[in-house]
Amino acid sequence: MAAIPKFSMQAIGHIRSPYRDTRDIPKGLGAKHKAEGSIEILAEFEAGLTDIEGFSHLFVLWAFDRSEGCSLVGTPPSDNRPHGVFATRSPRRPNPIGLTVVELLGREGPVLRVRGVDMLDGTPVLDIKPYLSSVAPELLRRGWLAEAEARAAGKP
Amino acid sequence: MAAIPKFSMQAIGHIRSPYRDTRDIPKGLGAKHKAEGSIEILAEFEAGLTDIEGFSHLFVLWAFDRSEGCSLVGTPPSDNRPHGVFATRSPRRPNPIGLTVVELLGREGPVLRVRGVDMLDGTPVLDIKPYLSSVAPELLRRGWLAEAEARAAGKP
Repeated sequence: MAAIPKFSMQAIGHIRSPYRDTRDIPKGLGAKHKAEGSIEILAEFEAGLTDIEGFSHLFVLWAFDRSEGCSLVGTPPSDNRPHGVFATRSPRRPNPIGLTVVELLGREGPVLRVRGVDMLDGTPVLDIKPYLSSVAPELLRRGWLAEAEARAAGKP
Repeated sequence: MAAIPKFSMQAIGHIRSPYRDTRDIPKGLGAKHKAEGSIEILAEFEAGLTDIEGFSHLFVLWAFDRSEGCSLVGTPPSDNRPHGVFATRSPRRPNPIGLTVVELLGREGPVLRVRGVDMLDGTPVLDIKPYLSSVAPELLRRGWLAEAEARAAGKP
């Protein structure tokens, strides 16, 4: 049997956010992520930001560096029922990668000012990608989350 | 100076796609990704798929396992001008993570049938997350890509 390949990742920069503790981060049904923060890219990677200013939104891939272990099934803050980790945004994932869509407000050299951070201050950033297109809202089905929202609203 | 922390990732499964060579994958302006394929999750992670069937679209995070090296600035297939790697989907990234939005067509146990694959057959999958909301199209700015599209259409 072949050895399982491992992929080694390292930070390209860090998040600056108002959140110092996971308890500070809005969670659960209806949580809005409007907090402003910044992405500070390490000097050696700054050239990779060339022309990023033209995009209004970015995907930020980051590491859950203060989360431990993995739970394949767990109950998220937005529901009282358990779901599989790949159907949630739980930090306790097989590979501790977070994904956040942020709005790009401006750039000063290696620093991107952004809106919509939901990461802890100091979180290591692994990658940034341009957000190029959206799935049309009328095509989206949101599974257990839509059901939890309906129950919270008192609908059957 | 503190050592740079490394994050070790491993495959949770693999992509089955019609593409055996990067030349087969549609690229460039107007490229559509409508190919069907599947995500085969390793048996040990199957419980993590619980309730994923309710979502119409998923984020798939995967590893560019057949890409080598990193170029901070490069010219993408959709333009004849160079851009920073964080403003493109280039495989030659500091951390070789790919991100694709797929439509979930069905699930049979550990296998997710999906539409919209743009990965090579056998690509290692690192994570799957539910796609919960879209940025409104009228709020999106698409930087150099919109400029390249306008030039290709003969607009100033």
